[in-house]
Amino acid sequence: MKGLVYKGNNVVKLEDVPEPKIINSGDAIIKMTRSTICGSDLHIQHGHIPYVPIGQTLGHEGVGIVEEAGPSVKKFKKGDHVLITAVTSCASCDYCRRGMNSHCRTGGWMLGNSTGGTQAEKVRIPHADSSLYALPEGIDESTLVMLSDIFPTGFECGVLNGKVAPGNVVAIVGAGPVGLAALITSQLYSPSQIIMVDFDENRLKVSKALGATDTVNNASGVDAATEAILKLTNGVGCDSVLEAVGVPASFELCQKILAPGGTLANVGVHGAPAPLLLDQLWDRNISITTRLVDTVTLPMLLKLVVSKRIDPSLLITHKFKFSDMEQAYDTFGAAAKHKALKVLIEFD
Amino acid sequence: MKGLVYKGNNVVKLEDVPEPKIINSGDAIIKMTRSTICGSDLHIQHGHIPYVPIGQTLGHEGVGIVEEAGPSVKKFKKGDHVLITAVTSCASCDYCRRGMNSHCRTGGWMLGNSTGGTQAEKVRIPHADSSLYALPEGIDESTLVMLSDIFPTGFECGVLNGKVAPGNVVAIVGAGPVGLAALITSQLYSPSQIIMVDFDENRLKVSKALGATDTVNNASGVDAATEAILKLTNGVGCDSVLEAVGVPASFELCQKILAPGGTLANVGVHGAPAPLLLDQLWDRNISITTRLVDTVTLPMLLKLVVSKRIDPSLLITHKFKFSDMEQAYDTFGAAAKHKALKVLIEFD
Amino acid sequence: MKGLVYKGNNVVKLEDVPEPKIINSGDAIIKMTRSTICGSDLHIQHGHIPYVPIGQTLGHEGVGIVEEAGPSVKKFKKGDHVLITAVTSCASCDYCRRGMNSHCRTGGWMLGNSTGGTQAEKVRIPHADSSLYALPEGIDESTLVMLSDIFPTGFECGVLNGKVAPGNVVAIVGAGPVGLAALITSQLYSPSQIIMVDFDENRLKVSKALGATDTVNNASGVDAATEAILKLTNGVGCDSVLEAVGVPASFELCQKILAPGGTLANVGVHGAPAPLLLDQLWDRNISITTRLVDTVTLPMLLKLVVSKRIDPSLLITHKFKFSDMEQAYDTFGAAAKHKALKVLIEFD
Amino acid sequence: MKGLVYKGNNVVKLEDVPEPKIINSGDAIIKMTRSTICGSDLHIQHGHIPYVPIGQTLGHEGVGIVEEAGPSVKKFKKGDHVLITAVTSCASCDYCRRGMNSHCRTGGWMLGNSTGGTQAEKVRIPHADSSLYALPEGIDESTLVMLSDIFPTGFECGVLNGKVAPGNVVAIVGAGPVGLAALITSQLYSPSQIIMVDFDENRLKVSKALGATDTVNNASGVDAATEAILKLTNGVGCDSVLEAVGVPASFELCQKILAPGGTLANVGVHGAPAPLLLDQLWDRNISITTRLVDTVTLPMLLKLVVSKRIDPSLLITHKFKFSDMEQAYDTFGAAAKHKALKVLIEFD
Repeated sequence: MKGLVYKGNNVVKLEDVPEPKIINSGDAIIKMTRSTICGSDLHIQHGHIPYVPIGQTLGHEGVGIVEEAGPSVKKFKKGDHVLITAVTSCASCDYCRRGMNSHCRTGGWMLGNSTGGTQAEKVRIPHADSSLYALPEGIDESTLVMLSDIFPTGFECGVLNGKVAPGNVVAIVGAGPVGLAALITSQLYSPSQIIMVDFDENRLKVSKALGATDTVNNASGVDAATEAILKLTNGVGCDSVLEAVGVPASFELCQKILAPGGTLANVGVHGAPAPLLLDQLWDRNISITTRLVDTVTLPMLLKLVVSKRIDPSLLITHKFKFSDMEQAYDTFGAAAKHKALKVLIEFD
Repeated sequence: MKGLVYKGNNVVKLEDVPEPKIINSGDAIIKMTRSTICGSDLHIQHGHIPYVPIGQTLGHEGVGIVEEAGPSVKKFKKGDHVLITAVTSCASCDYCRRGMNSHCRTGGWMLGNSTGGTQAEKVRIPHADSSLYALPEGIDESTLVMLSDIFPTGFECGVLNGKVAPGNVVAIVGAGPVGLAALITSQLYSPSQIIMVDFDENRLKVSKALGATDTVNNASGVDAATEAILKLTNGVGCDSVLEAVGVPASFELCQKILAPGGTLANVGVHGAPAPLLLDQLWDRNISITTRLVDTVTLPMLLKLVVSKRIDPSLLITHKFKFSDMEQAYDTFGAAAKHKALKVLIEFD
Repeated sequence: MKGLVYKGNNVVKLEDVPEPKIINSGDAIIKMTRSTICGSDLHIQHGHIPYVPIGQTLGHEGVGIVEEAGPSVKKFKKGDHVLITAVTSCASCDYCRRGMNSHCRTGGWMLGNSTGGTQAEKVRIPHADSSLYALPEGIDESTLVMLSDIFPTGFECGVLNGKVAPGNVVAIVGAGPVGLAALITSQLYSPSQIIMVDFDENRLKVSKALGATDTVNNASGVDAATEAILKLTNGVGCDSVLEAVGVPASFELCQKILAPGGTLANVGVHGAPAPLLLDQLWDRNISITTRLVDTVTLPMLLKLVVSKRIDPSLLITHKFKFSDMEQAYDTFGAAAKHKALKVLIEFD
Repeated sequence: MKGLVYKGNNVVKLEDVPEPKIINSGDAIIKMTRSTICGSDLHIQHGHIPYVPIGQTLGHEGVGIVEEAGPSVKKFKKGDHVLITAVTSCASCDYCRRGMNSHCRTGGWMLGNSTGGTQAEKVRIPHADSSLYALPEGIDESTLVMLSDIFPTGFECGVLNGKVAPGNVVAIVGAGPVGLAALITSQLYSPSQIIMVDFDENRLKVSKALGATDTVNNASGVDAATEAILKLTNGVGCDSVLEAVGVPASFELCQKILAPGGTLANVGVHGAPAPLLLDQLWDRNISITTRLVDTVTLPMLLKLVVSKRIDPSLLITHKFKFSDMEQAYDTFGAAAKHKALKVLIEFD
């Protein structure tokens, strides 16, 4: 079968790879029907996540059809249509019991990382019973692909950790797909103001269409952006600040626009430390959180998609056939140029 | 009257100062009977809190007797014995309504900072109705002085923010008075392990007597201390880590010993930024908090003192007459040498 | 001046009453510009709240203009336009500090109950600094009258206590003004389903227009309504059930439609005990709450009105001049006949 | 093998029963070493839980040795010593994911109820990986038997649901084994006062020894007990009231001694409705909770036993050989006469 393989030296390539097989009794083999590319796939491509081995097939998002279920899988059988979660979870270890599926003792972020990914014709899903979800009826499969990772990530790492609440002032730094998923899901809690911050005017324009009350272009640097945001908030700053970029400058901005008593929820993947302004923050009663998505809210998000409260398909800007996977990487890798948000991959 | 005055250049001096008068209708004038010195008074003495003006009388802790109550004070009258809280609170502004008395629009940490302090024969207390507490019967006044600041600080900024809970593994970095108050009050939540960390063997010995299950001397540096603490926790790290020092090295140690899903509660007063190890922490589901004490738990702590669940007097190591105030500063300023924790000041 | 007076024997009458005067230094005298009638005013009229004395002027909702402020009032002065909260609060007693303003040691529900009310040309507001709010600019005063009581009541006693959350299934039994305020504010938390239950088809029709996903007419009794609601929820029942009527039959229905792990938030004013079905509920992991509104969320609700997230004016169906106050009572007292929700009272 | 069988007509009998076998791949067969009798076993014996079929072997508590593990069991193997939880849990259904193991879609309270129990030489444990715990070293097995049910029940249904917190005033109505487990575990949160209420003077005496600050004998009726408890609490009532009996009179007392803002946590098993005094409680801002134990805190309780913070063995008053099982029922069934709390059953 074909799979999109990380070759090192910034190269990914669609090539022949071995078919996955059931290894443990709880595994399932899924024949993919839809997938997508994540910002973290680009990080792997460019060598920023060095523990991912050369030769790995990538991808941790998608929907598909059960081709084979291991003997102890109870919830799914051959032919079932399923949604794959980015995070594999045994459900019964101490971390899973605490809702920290991302730290599952025998799971976590495995797909397209330590085991074969979803940008391939088939994928093995460990702990299938607790890592797959049945597709609800009447919802387009493309829409559901957005729930494998970016919607739970924006919601859990951003909205929930950031304690977005009715009447709050929210700022989201970074209007990429995850930042925009946070923008959409923050509205589930009815803040009074949502300020989107990005370098890219197109993304700010999209943000406005998706519900931002204000936008700030931070291309002129941290100080100018700080000033603009404080002005928008009567000098007080923001109750909930979501970092959805992953670089020190953006993390610094987040600290500077945080109101007393506020929460800074980190969503971005960071490759370096950032200065923490403790001399300014020690007496400000603030919280800073980090989180790898646990996908524990996925059942709830599915309900909201079914009841039409949120529409994740709004983030899909491009579609590619799986055979054009490399071109999809080129487009997503130059997202600003192509005004790309999420690129959908369709299998034959 | 006499007051202990910050003179600049590391000097504090007991000298004649003007008597305080009622300025606003909610003020009260308190004749002091007991006071003490806080680590932050030393910070002021040495110029680390530059917005405190030269000439200020210091001190924000103590008990005394109401000498005069302004016309709109309702809860207290001349002759009442009262406990002074370090933080002045109007009770009705938006921050006070949220329990953030430290950020009161017309209060906060004023005493011995922006207005005259408690290391003087008399002190003016703004918002007296919501900033003073009646003394419970049968409790020694010296004990209660410990509740003006260090016990609420250790409990609110450390134990509550750090989410200390039954069965948790707790580490407290810094075994000074506030760290020890956190040690005592963390036991209110029955953690299974409390690791105290300090340079000073005497303080570690005191920690053991006050309930620490383990101690680690971090004089050999961050790496050695990290290794020792991880060993004590089977390599997992600590659920609740309390920073009670206020320097970057100690904050770094705290990050390195934090378990996935854990909370780092900053208690220390910081004069400089510290590196935040986001590259290691972004996917660890951790929280970091800061807080200036709000003293909102003071009524609860009073109940626990009355019911003998905690004994704050255990931290008092030295007593001085108010006329020996300068000597008290010398002793507290060289705390390790004198094995000093809290020095009690008694007025005539 | 004129005031609407409770005369006993189901009679209320607009008649001459003494003007209120400043009694305590924190009082303010407000000249009313808008008021309204509450369901609890009808309860008083019909003798269901026997501790309200005959001769009392009624009303606890409204907006007006400060005519005189006592000497210790700091936030308001003559001429300020203010919103009156139904609950008077000192802000600094133990209950107020816990956010339980309704149980304020020297406040609580006083207006039109133990002291003169807002259905009079002028009213005395005790603890003015913490019981009045400045009117935001650009919002119609009639809209704001809805925030004195019914919106905080629906939100605090119903939505917050009921733990309404994204994706939840909510049922609200009783589509009167408070039930409808709960319907509007429950949408701040994006439940996936909201089932409104009432006897009155008009109110169910209004409910649909205001966001209910389903309606059930419970005129045929508890069993039929239970069956209908369980059918709408696939036999599972509701996560959040809000009782906004105040009679045993309605409270019984609420218990029967509660899902395992769900919350029953009582909003209604009850005059009698109701059976608690402990034999069926002891092992269902449910919660039941009661609450007298604390109006602690009023500042937040004001923000949401200003940012156009909610529109309380949707509940105003009738307007009367203050001189037609008795007719207003007749209309509101026969609400179903007149399709009345809230009747607005305008002063000259 | 032998098992203690429910024969109907108030009779239980030790007789030959078939040996359990692996049915599902996640099952394990446990050879019992220690068990005990629960109050709910007596309820079954006397026909109060009518859905338990005649012929069922009883018991849901105990420790033992794995004799056989099904093919998909991963955590346990033949020869492992294990603690059995009263509640069987699949870990991955929606209820288990919410921590409501008691409502597991394919589990819950099965043992000695809908499937064979632990008062038999061997027992089949479904979902073994998530329903068994490895025994910690160095702790007596008898002690651990107390953790199968009564300690998690007292803690989860009582202490956690009752929001016991530092400084709180707690009342526990019912000083049987579960009430006493709640008494011991409520001290994990350092309330300032714990009032134990029971008919039996011996149990009140035991309560004092286990940490109660006050005791009230409620043999003289609800009104006298109410008066006594209000007197002990300065007329205010209790913040946390735990009902550990299961009859209407005791539930009524709990309502009458609840402070404004307090929580009534039901722990008792009820066979009948009880009046809810809504006319007195609707405006008191109280909560009432119910819960079937979920045993989700069992790992935490194990840590506290290992670290010697709690000693569950204090509740064991009698020991019997398994062959004397019927006599054990007689003793436990007349607990007051025998001053029995928990009776331990030892297998050969």
